[in-house]
Amino acid sequence: MTELILLKIGGSIITEKDVSEPKINTKNLRRICKEIAEGYEDGSIKLIIVHGAGSYGHPIVKRTGIHEGITRPEQVLSFAQTQVLQNILNSEVCQVLQEFHLPAIPVQPSASAIMEKKRILSLNFEVIRDFLELSLIPVLFGVPAFDKTQKCSILSGDQLIVFLARKLNPQKIIFATNVDGILGKDQQLIEKITSDDFESIQDSFYETSYDDVTGSMAGKISELKSLTGLKSYIINGNKNDLIRNILKGKNVRGTVIEF
Amino acid sequence: MTELILLKIGGSIITEKDVSEPKINTKNLRRICKEIAEGYEDGSIKLIIVHGAGSYGHPIVKRTGIHEGITRPEQVLSFAQTQVLQNILNSEVCQVLQEFHLPAIPVQPSASAIMEKKRILSLNFEVIRDFLELSLIPVLFGVPAFDKTQKCSILSGDQLIVFLARKLNPQKIIFATNVDGILGKDQQLIEKITSDDFESIQDSFYETSYDDVTGSMAGKISELKSLTGLKSYIINGNKNDLIRNILKGKNVRGTVIEF
Repeated sequence: MTELILLKIGGSIITEKDVSEPKINTKNLRRICKEIAEGYEDGSIKLIIVHGAGSYGHPIVKRTGIHEGITRPEQVLSFAQTQVLQNILNSEVCQVLQEFHLPAIPVQPSASAIMEKKRILSLNFEVIRDFLELSLIPVLFGVPAFDKTQKCSILSGDQLIVFLARKLNPQKIIFATNVDGILGKDQQLIEKITSDDFESIQDSFYETSYDDVTGSMAGKISELKSLTGLKSYIINGNKNDLIRNILKGKNVRGTVIEF
Repeated sequence: MTELILLKIGGSIITEKDVSEPKINTKNLRRICKEIAEGYEDGSIKLIIVHGAGSYGHPIVKRTGIHEGITRPEQVLSFAQTQVLQNILNSEVCQVLQEFHLPAIPVQPSASAIMEKKRILSLNFEVIRDFLELSLIPVLFGVPAFDKTQKCSILSGDQLIVFLARKLNPQKIIFATNVDGILGKDQQLIEKITSDDFESIQDSFYETSYDDVTGSMAGKISELKSLTGLKSYIINGNKNDLIRNILKGKNVRGTVIEF
């Protein structure tokens, strides 16, 4: 059976931080795309990629405040500018994936998404399913999107992953982040989380700067709780070989969440 | 009352022809964006822009044959590559529009479009309506899209315009092309076409290289016939001032179609 994998690539590992202008981390992006190509090549998996915004998104959103809604006329232009920046990043990501012969096709989520109170209400996932059947690799990304309540809110890569997981029932979700996994209060890696121990250990999570994570890590994980039969992996995408090996089904250092 | 205008910008007037690599006609693109900004500034219109592909689309589509469907595995990559090129062109167009302070927001049609036998079956237009209400200017563009019959077909700018006209009831459609309008067999400009004379004169149309037009010009016009109360204008986007003036409601040289 072909396995469906959702791969989230944090914006912080493919863009440069602490820069005044949006900038891609070219070296990391190329390595990651090469690893995806090597992990994908045997044809036994179907893949959806979702990437974050990093320096293409966070600075402009913070500066213009569009994540809290449109309250001033000039924010309408900011909304549009933020979207263009995301499309530019996404085109670059897809082009590098294509250099490694992966049929990575852009899917702009805000072309169909409707949000309400910062939460995704609807999004056209039928096309994503059709693209998968055609052996394309849909590449979605965090975007500013129309919100019924506040006109604009941020549809983050993490929200997209949870939405797609509910609609498309993947076998695995891989979060490639800038940390090794979920850490306990002593900063030790928690290697496995199950539904049995989630409640008792969630208060002890060491909260760090997870990429694109607006809420707490415990909150994110709890959103996956309704999805049985799914394994989620949080790994460090900055370290060599992890993305390739996990796509190939090998065990890698990180946190496995199994509810 | 606020007037809704659909503006189609032909790919041939914003990109360079007869080049081996996709290339933007920067001078024309900047002039056109400036004219749109000047025509839009008084706030009495709402605007949707649809642009064609020009050298970003036609050469790769012709070379790979994806417009006739996916019949060979390597065409899956071509599908994805063609989409990325369109997004790159669209980002450039939106960025130049934004330089003139227009809140131009990309809307990738293939993120929600389903085609059947090369015709558009469904597309999410609710978000486009929401964007308009927020005073954004949605910018759509010709793309390769999923086709239920042949896996891939081209959703052209012209098809998008007709679809949007049916769903959103604009008062005007403006086709900015590389010709002065519709020409009769003697190559004289036909200034006005109404439902009364369309049937009798359509056989005498001089068929020229209209941008992005896959069928005949008569065929395109006949698709607008079901839309009463709509005025369509075919004008030359290569000539100075026409786009600005027609947006301002002035008479300009071209063909008016009124059914």
